[in-house]
Amino acid sequence: MSNPESFRELCRKEIHTGPTSGVLPGYIQANLLILPKCVAESFEDLCTRNPVACPILSKTEGGPQFLRNHASLIKQGTFDIRTDFPRYNVYSRGKLVQQKNNCVNEWSSDHVGFLIGCSFTFEHALEKAGLVPKNVLYNKNVSMFRTTKFLDSAGIFHQCPYVVSMRPYKLTEVEIVREITRKFKKTHGEPLDWGYDGAKRLGIEDLQKPDYGDPIDIGEQEIPMFWACGVTPQLAVTTVGDRIEGSVIGHTPGHMLILDATDVDWC
Amino acid sequence: MSNPESFRELCRKEIHTGPTSGVLPGYIQANLLILPKCVAESFEDLCTRNPVACPILSKTEGGPQFLRNHASLIKQGTFDIRTDFPRYNVYSRGKLVQQKNNCVNEWSSDHVGFLIGCSFTFEHALEKAGLVPKNVLYNKNVSMFRTTKFLDSAGIFHQCPYVVSMRPYKLTEVEIVREITRKFKKTHGEPLDWGYDGAKRLGIEDLQKPDYGDPIDIGEQEIPMFWACGVTPQLAVTTVGDRIEGSVIGHTPGHMLILDATDVDWC
Repeated sequence: MSNPESFRELCRKEIHTGPTSGVLPGYIQANLLILPKCVAESFEDLCTRNPVACPILSKTEGGPQFLRNHASLIKQGTFDIRTDFPRYNVYSRGKLVQQKNNCVNEWSSDHVGFLIGCSFTFEHALEKAGLVPKNVLYNKNVSMFRTTKFLDSAGIFHQCPYVVSMRPYKLTEVEIVREITRKFKKTHGEPLDWGYDGAKRLGIEDLQKPDYGDPIDIGEQEIPMFWACGVTPQLAVTTVGDRIEGSVIGHTPGHMLILDATDVDWC
Repeated sequence: MSNPESFRELCRKEIHTGPTSGVLPGYIQANLLILPKCVAESFEDLCTRNPVACPILSKTEGGPQFLRNHASLIKQGTFDIRTDFPRYNVYSRGKLVQQKNNCVNEWSSDHVGFLIGCSFTFEHALEKAGLVPKNVLYNKNVSMFRTTKFLDSAGIFHQCPYVVSMRPYKLTEVEIVREITRKFKKTHGEPLDWGYDGAKRLGIEDLQKPDYGDPIDIGEQEIPMFWACGVTPQLAVTTVGDRIEGSVIGHTPGHMLILDATDVDWC
């Protein structure tokens, strides 16, 4: 695990099949969505219209081993989108049907894969500033909530809700936390909203009952802060899945691709 | 009024000071926002994070007569952002304080001007397809509504609501109307939502009481369709205006800048 290239090889050989939280800090981690070509344009439109929730880092061009702007993200010849994530979710008609260590059999020449930004990178920056997120401090998964805020519709993607991640901070820390995360423009950037009023605006009813991840205590001196979350695209697929013919593949949440690019390259 | 250059000259000479609806169809019209430099970065972040509601076409660089990507939008030497809109709204601390035919006295070297996409362009395309918007058909202003959907926050811009424009269409026309407007990626693109359920999701209570523009009848066979609207940035300025020191200048709604670029160039 000394560098991203060798870590991807461990995944390809199915030696590493677990989560990537804490793996190779400072390197960008990416969410995945692989779709049939016939809906890929709709999905790309959805991402372009909603760049905060669905920030595209790259997409496959000319096969599963090639990315648009490949060289700036991953060393040539050291990447295969079908094998280099530790674990994959396979969807059919919007339903999760299988979890696997590779998607070689599901991938076809009719598929396009998208790499989507992940908030891991700004967690590392918060840590460096002494503002360690509580989920990191207590070694838990971040709390994630489905909201009542909808993405701006695109093609087949209509009525798709934002998913947000939540990290508690003191009121006096809000502006510096916003400032630090603002720089990560390709990995969700600054928070969408914050405070108990912000939770109401997002339609979140119970902060101790996340829809994904672990519950995180919010102290008396703290308020919740909400960032757009890379689970949003997978929820979009399950929302309109009955309109998609053919396999859709995502990463298993928490099981990310590690790129050769660092947060410094992409800030 | 034979071409955009001579029309801009009429505005500069304060001969044309009225609305631009129906002026030189096919040429792109632009909304305006001029801000002090100290908040321009926040505003540009807001636009980048919310490209559907706040699509930046260009911004001034090096003075009021120069734009980023100038040549693709306006012929060199035929433009001045302070005089070439027919009419201007001047804001102080978020309050509208004056309407004027130019903003020469308000502009300073400390200002940056942004041109924002306007939905006029797709109205022309809808007309060409025989789907004349009712506001055009009856020569009324489009209905615009303040919604309960918030922009993704950026810098000083927090809790700023989307404004949407509404055009009624038959249920059988919805998909073709979506398809035609989808192409106009820099001028709001396809609708955010539609139907009476869509009105509820956007928090619109009474479709006959628009917050801006004229009421438009919705026939029994029709449903409302909602597009993001270029009034959104001006509402953002009035929402957080008490945090902005110095003059802010917008166009008077309906009184747009006519560019030399056409919808064909920018589709």
